[in-house]
Amino acid sequence: MKNMVNIGVIGYGYWGPNLVRNFAEIPNAQVTKVSDFKPELLAKAQARYPSIQVTTDCQDIFKDPKIDAVAIATPVSTHFDLALAALQAGKHVLVEKPMTASSEQAKRLIEEAEKRNLVLMVDHTFVYTGAVRKMHDLIASNQLGDIYYYDSVRVNLGLFQHDVNVIWDLAVHDLSIMNYVLPSQPYAVSATGVSHVPGEPENIAYLTCFFESNLIAHFHVNWLAPVKVRRTLIGGSQRMIVFDDLEPSEKLKIYDKGITVNGSSESVYQMLIGYRTGDMWSPKLDVTEALRTEGLHFIECITQGSRPITDGEAGLQTVKILEAATQSMKQRGRLIELNLTEVAA
Amino acid sequence: MKNMVNIGVIGYGYWGPNLVRNFAEIPNAQVTKVSDFKPELLAKAQARYPSIQVTTDCQDIFKDPKIDAVAIATPVSTHFDLALAALQAGKHVLVEKPMTASSEQAKRLIEEAEKRNLVLMVDHTFVYTGAVRKMHDLIASNQLGDIYYYDSVRVNLGLFQHDVNVIWDLAVHDLSIMNYVLPSQPYAVSATGVSHVPGEPENIAYLTCFFESNLIAHFHVNWLAPVKVRRTLIGGSQRMIVFDDLEPSEKLKIYDKGITVNGSSESVYQMLIGYRTGDMWSPKLDVTEALRTEGLHFIECITQGSRPITDGEAGLQTVKILEAATQSMKQRGRLIELNLTEVAA
Amino acid sequence: MKNMVNIGVIGYGYWGPNLVRNFAEIPNAQVTKVSDFKPELLAKAQARYPSIQVTTDCQDIFKDPKIDAVAIATPVSTHFDLALAALQAGKHVLVEKPMTASSEQAKRLIEEAEKRNLVLMVDHTFVYTGAVRKMHDLIASNQLGDIYYYDSVRVNLGLFQHDVNVIWDLAVHDLSIMNYVLPSQPYAVSATGVSHVPGEPENIAYLTCFFESNLIAHFHVNWLAPVKVRRTLIGGSQRMIVFDDLEPSEKLKIYDKGITVNGSSESVYQMLIGYRTGDMWSPKLDVTEALRTEGLHFIECITQGSRPITDGEAGLQTVKILEAATQSMKQRGRLIELNLTEVAA
Amino acid sequence: MKNMVNIGVIGYGYWGPNLVRNFAEIPNAQVTKVSDFKPELLAKAQARYPSIQVTTDCQDIFKDPKIDAVAIATPVSTHFDLALAALQAGKHVLVEKPMTASSEQAKRLIEEAEKRNLVLMVDHTFVYTGAVRKMHDLIASNQLGDIYYYDSVRVNLGLFQHDVNVIWDLAVHDLSIMNYVLPSQPYAVSATGVSHVPGEPENIAYLTCFFESNLIAHFHVNWLAPVKVRRTLIGGSQRMIVFDDLEPSEKLKIYDKGITVNGSSESVYQMLIGYRTGDMWSPKLDVTEALRTEGLHFIECITQGSRPITDGEAGLQTVKILEAATQSMKQRGRLIELNLTEVAA
Repeated sequence: MKNMVNIGVIGYGYWGPNLVRNFAEIPNAQVTKVSDFKPELLAKAQARYPSIQVTTDCQDIFKDPKIDAVAIATPVSTHFDLALAALQAGKHVLVEKPMTASSEQAKRLIEEAEKRNLVLMVDHTFVYTGAVRKMHDLIASNQLGDIYYYDSVRVNLGLFQHDVNVIWDLAVHDLSIMNYVLPSQPYAVSATGVSHVPGEPENIAYLTCFFESNLIAHFHVNWLAPVKVRRTLIGGSQRMIVFDDLEPSEKLKIYDKGITVNGSSESVYQMLIGYRTGDMWSPKLDVTEALRTEGLHFIECITQGSRPITDGEAGLQTVKILEAATQSMKQRGRLIELNLTEVAA
Repeated sequence: MKNMVNIGVIGYGYWGPNLVRNFAEIPNAQVTKVSDFKPELLAKAQARYPSIQVTTDCQDIFKDPKIDAVAIATPVSTHFDLALAALQAGKHVLVEKPMTASSEQAKRLIEEAEKRNLVLMVDHTFVYTGAVRKMHDLIASNQLGDIYYYDSVRVNLGLFQHDVNVIWDLAVHDLSIMNYVLPSQPYAVSATGVSHVPGEPENIAYLTCFFESNLIAHFHVNWLAPVKVRRTLIGGSQRMIVFDDLEPSEKLKIYDKGITVNGSSESVYQMLIGYRTGDMWSPKLDVTEALRTEGLHFIECITQGSRPITDGEAGLQTVKILEAATQSMKQRGRLIELNLTEVAA
Repeated sequence: MKNMVNIGVIGYGYWGPNLVRNFAEIPNAQVTKVSDFKPELLAKAQARYPSIQVTTDCQDIFKDPKIDAVAIATPVSTHFDLALAALQAGKHVLVEKPMTASSEQAKRLIEEAEKRNLVLMVDHTFVYTGAVRKMHDLIASNQLGDIYYYDSVRVNLGLFQHDVNVIWDLAVHDLSIMNYVLPSQPYAVSATGVSHVPGEPENIAYLTCFFESNLIAHFHVNWLAPVKVRRTLIGGSQRMIVFDDLEPSEKLKIYDKGITVNGSSESVYQMLIGYRTGDMWSPKLDVTEALRTEGLHFIECITQGSRPITDGEAGLQTVKILEAATQSMKQRGRLIELNLTEVAA
Repeated sequence: MKNMVNIGVIGYGYWGPNLVRNFAEIPNAQVTKVSDFKPELLAKAQARYPSIQVTTDCQDIFKDPKIDAVAIATPVSTHFDLALAALQAGKHVLVEKPMTASSEQAKRLIEEAEKRNLVLMVDHTFVYTGAVRKMHDLIASNQLGDIYYYDSVRVNLGLFQHDVNVIWDLAVHDLSIMNYVLPSQPYAVSATGVSHVPGEPENIAYLTCFFESNLIAHFHVNWLAPVKVRRTLIGGSQRMIVFDDLEPSEKLKIYDKGITVNGSSESVYQMLIGYRTGDMWSPKLDVTEALRTEGLHFIECITQGSRPITDGEAGLQTVKILEAATQSMKQRGRLIELNLTEVAA
């Protein structure tokens, strides 16, 4: 593999400029072409980066033999066609979250990438933040003990999407975080939610994930809240975490709190459960911009032929939960099985 | 009706002393007798209030012809028998929440009280706080517009109960608040939750209530959280409320925020939904102790023959939701119909 | 010394009941007599503690040979006369803060107590809280490095006192804390402040204490603030503390933050100062009521003949700063020397 | 006056790029030339704005007859020479805060601008924020009643400056805000502070401003705090304000709280002072970037010949307080008179 990775970026709306800016600052990567169907957005890209070529036709990117990798930052409904075309053109792919609009599409992309031995990475940005990586490390090194629950709230007065419901827009972040930090995967979901605008997708939703153990995960997402909340609680038998992403500096707090169960009690009337409270600790976190860490990881996977943390499987698992949750929500909480391990098997 | 209402209090554990203290400061009420099966608790009552008679036998209260009303502050499993005996002895009744251990029991008590023309009141204490009464008034005077959602979180590292699950222990507060402040009632529930201590009731739970309109209500209760949260969001088409019960002074914040839906758009690509943000306002609240307001209301209902705000019906409706939620939780979110209007019909 | 210490309490207004309640729960102490010139307050004491004798004449306490110690909870203007009479009657003394209305009075009491070998203790309550004791231990074990500053804010919409200014009412708490946790003493003060009610003492004040080292301490006290703040910052060369007394559980946070000075730079244009940020840590604190810890310490000092942490000297040092600050405030910030070490010398 | 105002910007370090970006988006203004003595900074300006001319010699700006106005964003020690040269070249001037390194310099610039009928404006950015303008309007419309105090805290772990002390670096913001929102000016200051790095300017300071009325103002600034605080309290006889600049949305809270003084009491022993608490209100604020509002104001003053809100006098008054405070701090709080009204007289 040559040293410099040439990248084409498709989509220069909200997220594309962040991708271009970050790849521009990575030593062995360069964005050589940007496509968008809106000329005014291309003009902005051109003014900011005079050396980049721009085009309204994404085929110009697929056909360019000098381009090694494609980053896709377009609406979710277009992810599958664009990513498939990129893979078929022999390009490595970094695709926006959610990976695809269906799990069938996600499986098809994974197959294509494996067949061609190309990197397929999903832009689960939060996984590359200092806070989430620290949570992963704390859990992986068993500092929380058995994990009892994962509870997440992500609400604000936010942009109502027309093409996807609030689960696909917001819970996708938290599901990708959960998928990364927890050691096991849910087997079923139950979700509830409603739309407050006729004809539009659900703008408030609640989602429970069930696990084989007594671990439970729950997600509250809402586009119509008067205040902004981004808070996750993770409860373990040894320690518990509060992750408040709106805190400017102390995003992660680890509590040495919990219960102790005294199993040897002879009487049901005795108190079997004791409470334990200790210190709280807020670790210093890496403040590198997540997209930079993620960009470096993508380039490293390409040049070293390694597998991304947020690979196609991670993208597929998240899409499966989004699909099942939407189905459950239509049926007011009906339990939907997930089969998350089928592809890996 | 004579002027002074004589009260017997059954149960002098955690809540009983608060009842006795508050009734002692109400002009036309007096506690004349206290019963508890633990003599050491009666000794404390006697030392604090030398003029009150104490007894280990609650029959002494039922049989006392000078006692007009009985306040019951005992475990929920005993509520039905004690309240029924009190009503049958011709006493007005104030019973701890939850009213009874089943909706069948609650209906039986309502019938008995109606037959005998006695006051039957449930101690839904939060309904008598300044914050909840202000929320009720704001909604009743239509200042929020159409109600879109009711979202409540009540979690902390709390006492694990052995006889009831966390819904019966904590969500009962929020259900009684919702029942009071919202103008309509849910028709079905879906709940999820687990226990983290073998053989013990569920200690974390999530509960969704469905309404005929597009209103949705959700409750998160947890005995095993590292931090204490007591926060309710109410979203309306005109305004939204944040009720944070842990705020020392600004418990209620009313946001002039929301969305506007432009129905006349000709194109699906146009943005149909606008955002509206205005001032926030935190009203001064009545800081009278809730139990004092509630005690005055109980005495007034007795002396004037009026119906309490938190009457048997309010107690029954809450118990019905608790029952249905527990049933749904056992079946991992299965929708359970409520039939809340049956008795009133 | 016999085992049981008999205590007389003078003053049963705001603070007296707390003293009586705490001494009542200490094994080898008992309050045998309470005096107050208001009969209605004595009636409350009698109702609450039937075995205690009450009197409107404090001489009854001084003359009672069975009383070993006297606790004084009266207005500051009366502290000197009452404490002196108690000492002259051979009683150990616990006196409310501020110890006296002048440093001359404080010195006189110290002399009298030393002459008679009696315990003289000042009720600097905060010194006995878990948070302040932890700060003391952290500083004493050199975990903060060199202490750079002590900054305290204590403001709210509080009761305007008529007899003392806001420094004597509020800063006395913070000065007693500073005196306990810092290893050195200030040599001078400069204070500013005003009164907003004609004829009344200053209700807002700012006080700076100067030390021989480059340590500086500052206090902001205010009876007329719209919000309540009780926050102290302590900056050291190695670590820094934030003590927020209004936090329900995490009152103390220790930051591994600071600067590093690179003295070997060859150029004045080079940045000589680096910044260091690390973890934050909030230790579990003892939650015993401060007045209980203090009461136990008072009884222990009496029975074991030891010297209290908050002895007459600690009381005198605080009064000296209060005196000097009031004098400086009258002269709009003029520097006033303190001579804190004169008595000890 | 022609329609388009041509601007030269001197200094492209920290603040210069913000000036250029904002003027670039103002319809009837354009930056035509940027100077800086560092070529690498000019290269950045050139890449970002290809149409702008760059130069290492600021004389190129003064000599350019097409340039109407000069914006100066350089270290404070250079402000006077650059601003004077610009005025003498017939250019309108916008100069960074603090206006100059001494009040003598500030007076000289004011004279020069008046003589030549040129706009002289100081970049007191905070004055152009929505929050500060709202505070100004509330006070100007007498909604706070008599102003009792102004209390400001601006602390964090911040960059240690080598050329100016923390008062010149941080308090300058708060003094310019106070100068704008309060209807009167202080007559004297007392300041205390120390340096914790040998040979460097003071890094922590406290400053009191005295007014003819019983209004008092106080400022706490600190480069060495473990947490960031940006909070101002303004107390009035009718209402009080809390301005917390770190709050993401509710920066301003207005409290209907205060005291009432009952002057007709016959006895000094009676409580003369009552407490009043009412609603809290947080107004929606204009969120336009302050520098855009300020830039529009500068251009408007030039084209319409009007006087800026933050004119040379406003800059001079702030510099006078900074000078006096530094002098007072060297003498540990000695009162220094201000003479703020001398020039206007």
